Amino acid sequence: MTLPLLDHILHGNAAQQRRAMAKAITLLESTRADHRAQGDELLTQLLPHTGKALRLGISGVPGVGKSTFIEALGIYLIEQGHRVAVLSIDPSSSVSGGSILGDKTRMEKLSVNERAYIRPSPSGGNLGGVAEKTREAMLVCEAAGYDVVIVETVGVGQSETAAWGMTDMFVLLQLPNAGDDLQAIKKGVMEMADLVVINKADIDPKAATRAQAQITSSLRLLGMHGTAEQHDGRHWSPSVIQISALLGQGVENFWAEVRQYRQLQTDNGELPLRRQRQNMAWMWERIDAGLKLAFRQHEAVRQRLPQLQQQVLGGQLAASTAARQLLDAYGAAAALSAPGST
Amino acid sequence: MTLPLLDHILHGNAAQQRRAMAKAITLLESTRADHRAQGDELLTQLLPHTGKALRLGISGVPGVGKSTFIEALGIYLIEQGHRVAVLSIDPSSSVSGGSILGDKTRMEKLSVNERAYIRPSPSGGNLGGVAEKTREAMLVCEAAGYDVVIVETVGVGQSETAAWGMTDMFVLLQLPNAGDDLQAIKKGVMEMADLVVINKADIDPKAATRAQAQITSSLRLLGMHGTAEQHDGRHWSPSVIQISALLGQGVENFWAEVRQYRQLQTDNGELPLRRQRQNMAWMWERIDAGLKLAFRQHEAVRQRLPQLQQQVLGGQLAASTAARQLLDAYGAAAALSAPGST
Repeated sequence: MTLPLLDHILHGNAAQQRRAMAKAITLLESTRADHRAQGDELLTQLLPHTGKALRLGISGVPGVGKSTFIEALGIYLIEQGHRVAVLSIDPSSSVSGGSILGDKTRMEKLSVNERAYIRPSPSGGNLGGVAEKTREAMLVCEAAGYDVVIVETVGVGQSETAAWGMTDMFVLLQLPNAGDDLQAIKKGVMEMADLVVINKADIDPKAATRAQAQITSSLRLLGMHGTAEQHDGRHWSPSVIQISALLGQGVENFWAEVRQYRQLQTDNGELPLRRQRQNMAWMWERIDAGLKLAFRQHEAVRQRLPQLQQQVLGGQLAASTAARQLLDAYGAAAALSAPGST
Repeated sequence: MTLPLLDHILHGNAAQQRRAMAKAITLLESTRADHRAQGDELLTQLLPHTGKALRLGISGVPGVGKSTFIEALGIYLIEQGHRVAVLSIDPSSSVSGGSILGDKTRMEKLSVNERAYIRPSPSGGNLGGVAEKTREAMLVCEAAGYDVVIVETVGVGQSETAAWGMTDMFVLLQLPNAGDDLQAIKKGVMEMADLVVINKADIDPKAATRAQAQITSSLRLLGMHGTAEQHDGRHWSPSVIQISALLGQGVENFWAEVRQYRQLQTDNGELPLRRQRQNMAWMWERIDAGLKLAFRQHEAVRQRLPQLQQQVLGGQLAASTAARQLLDAYGAAAALSAPGST
């Protein structure tokens, strides 16, 4: 069943390809075990045709102007001859119903362009599941020949880490507000940034310049640098630039920064290493999530958990003792008494 | 075997108690399965006699002056009639050999005081294991009647989170250096602080005052507040104070802050809730660590892992597919195809 799908994704005409991509992504998003098996088969077949895109993560708090910026960037890139896919990670979309990221119409011009493919955040499940589906959808887009994949994420929760963990370059959009940079540092997002972009610079140019100086100084004090090293061993230091997405100012400059970073990543061999690290991290993340879930669903665990929890809360049992008893019930007790155990 | 030990911890004379405490902690630190079973039995017997101490976490980067401060504080508290235990969490101690925290002699006056009990960081294992042993040692100290337990930790890695997760109040020691506050924000330590203390204020009073203003402003911009709520529903806002541990200045003021926080925590009922949350978090942390370890030690997993890893790194297999195959080998495969899976 997956073979014609694969063929259409790789070689179909525009309409066939678009339909096949939607079908494939729906299959990969399914939670049915038989779909999952077919999905894994399809993924394995797609893999040799993936990896050629520039994977760009874009994060920023709601209101920072991500949609406007991504639309301006997407249009610009298509004019340059690229094909652009936009995927979203927003674990809150299934809760809030109409997510800001789920709304295709917010990128009106880009969404009707046939060289663009926009897919809202998968709904249902929590972050791990949502991120996994986005990651797999990215592979489908790459196999279909999209050479720039943008993974956008709202600046809440841990979705940035997920987006960072599947992209080649991570961009942080900031508002020129006091404290916005501290919030980003606190959440650990500043640390992940390969490029910091101050949007809405047109509204208050002085504030934007102040924010730029402030963030540059913070990055220096924190000793932060991106993951790519330069030829001479020096690190890539994330630039801080100003743009106005609404007025279309700064997109070209932004893309020049991205290309410079890409060049460096390619020249020094950091790109394949970064992707390999991401793949390994991703595999273990999924395994750990699966282990947690299997444990919580285990019959003996479900039977004993409520009482042991009560005993811990009531102060009759030490938390570590309860943990050992539950692991014992699950059949994994030996683990924590082994030397050098976690 | 544990009964005389228990009796000596609870009712022994000074020498008996000290020996029994050391024995009990050594038993709890053992990785032998039979010791572990005896240790769990002892813990359960000790539990009704624990929980009466004020549990104080103290963190700060190397060089901030933790030892000097803790010694000054300990001496002061003993003069006030308290009995003081000092425990350490330093997962690097087993790596570096002579850890700065492992050196008892660095608190010369305090360590010879019979109303003080100082235990260096347990060695061996990684953070989870080290933290577990410290947590259990804390219970032994409480049962022996120590009414102030200080858990100190070096300001590196995730050891702060562990110390924060076992104490009633978490104190961050800071140097009056530019960028030191940003580092603390970046690491997420500032967020955990119930009180921020700028040490070495005597060296450069102007810099200390500048740092105090800077941190106060950062805390405000970040909207941070401690976990205790005041009667009227307002939150506890962490104070920022200056001290000079070396000159013995500010210890009394520090203790007044701690007592004020404690009063609030007790009056509004936050203290038992905080400890219950800590116990639950701790139980799950230990379970997850045990699950990870059991998985990695599982025969079928160990057999298949190297090849699957190579396939993922070589781009022949998607990371999520490899994860599912390994979970399958472990017998926990159903988990990740279930609806709403993590």
